Amino acid sequence: MASERIVKSYEEELKRLRELIARMGGLAERQVADAAYALVRRDSELAGEVVGRDAPIDALEREVDSFCVRLLALRQPMASDLRFIIAALKISQDIERIGDYARNVAKRAIIVSGQPFLGGVNGFQWMAQLVQRNLKDSIDAFVKDDADLAERVWAADAPVDDIYTGIFREMLTHMMEDPRNITACTHLLFIAKNFERIGDHATNIAETVHYAVRGASLPDDRPKADASMEAQTP
Amino acid sequence: MASERIVKSYEEELKRLRELIARMGGLAERQVADAAYALVRRDSELAGEVVGRDAPIDALEREVDSFCVRLLALRQPMASDLRFIIAALKISQDIERIGDYARNVAKRAIIVSGQPFLGGVNGFQWMAQLVQRNLKDSIDAFVKDDADLAERVWAADAPVDDIYTGIFREMLTHMMEDPRNITACTHLLFIAKNFERIGDHATNIAETVHYAVRGASLPDDRPKADASMEAQTP
Repeated sequence: MASERIVKSYEEELKRLRELIARMGGLAERQVADAAYALVRRDSELAGEVVGRDAPIDALEREVDSFCVRLLALRQPMASDLRFIIAALKISQDIERIGDYARNVAKRAIIVSGQPFLGGVNGFQWMAQLVQRNLKDSIDAFVKDDADLAERVWAADAPVDDIYTGIFREMLTHMMEDPRNITACTHLLFIAKNFERIGDHATNIAETVHYAVRGASLPDDRPKADASMEAQTP
Repeated sequence: MASERIVKSYEEELKRLRELIARMGGLAERQVADAAYALVRRDSELAGEVVGRDAPIDALEREVDSFCVRLLALRQPMASDLRFIIAALKISQDIERIGDYARNVAKRAIIVSGQPFLGGVNGFQWMAQLVQRNLKDSIDAFVKDDADLAERVWAADAPVDDIYTGIFREMLTHMMEDPRNITACTHLLFIAKNFERIGDHATNIAETVHYAVRGASLPDDRPKADASMEAQTP
């Protein structure tokens, strides 16, 4: 009986870890969505809220960390449980970074909100939606132990890179046309880069989930459309 | 006797983990140094080498990962050993990212190598040196369990942010003066940002080391000169 109770409570602890990561992922998704919305709607009030909402994500990261350390110390898990806990540690670090990037987008959205939008609205919206979906799917894959979903996310990042390349080209054109656009365009370039990096972290999460579930790594080379570097020399 | 041998070999395993992180850190330091050197010397051959030398860092990250998982499974470490192993897992992720940023600097260094250098050489050199030193010190702190050194690194990042702000202002000026500078300046802006992020990761490593050694986190708010955001609206 006692040992049954211990097992039960261990299961509950692992469930709680899933919930913590799901909650953290949910907060980050909302930050990404609201930062993008604030940017394209020139809504600096919402952007200000996004900036102020980063702390709960950081706090959750610390909670996941100490919870994982406690689980490792008290439960001394083996094999797949061990991989699962290690994965949670890594994923919380990725989500925390995603939160940082969303906050940075929001800060820059405030700065550019006073200026006319220089095209690219569709690009930004689309890019934000794609990385948000990849983030959501990668977290879902973790919560459901779904290695196939993780693998799909891992392979799905290429369009994000394409949109980034398009935005980059467009911004360069605006800057060259009129020097008064330069400051705003520079911010928009960094914003696009931030979305791209959010996409990279979603891919990282997917890789981690795949490893946790299958016990084997995905190949080194992801199908990545790396045209953005060349695009920078138009 | 047998148990002494087990303890001995456990100590050796922890020592090996230190060595793996030290080696990984050493490779990343060299990548940062060479990427900066290649940039300011317009040496695209060296930059090409930096791009090609990222794979060993990634391979070491995987080695650290699986070594840590094995240690956790076989040794079921407690308290400070557990924190040490978790720290190694996190630090290897930070070093891997630093390697990515150095590679990105090198890729962009190749692109800008054909164009006249637009000032800022001193700024880039200085920034690269500072983040390299912070990286070295944070890894040393890990290898030597030195929480005081970790705390100094953690507090030392402010000048990096100041230099970044200066480079940002300078690049904006160049872009506004002559649209032909825009492409190169954009790359240089991203390069400066990459160095700044390398500095951020060195700070992360220092925080992780501090936690591993002392068992307590550093405060949330680092003394960070966050003027770069304002500088972007000159």
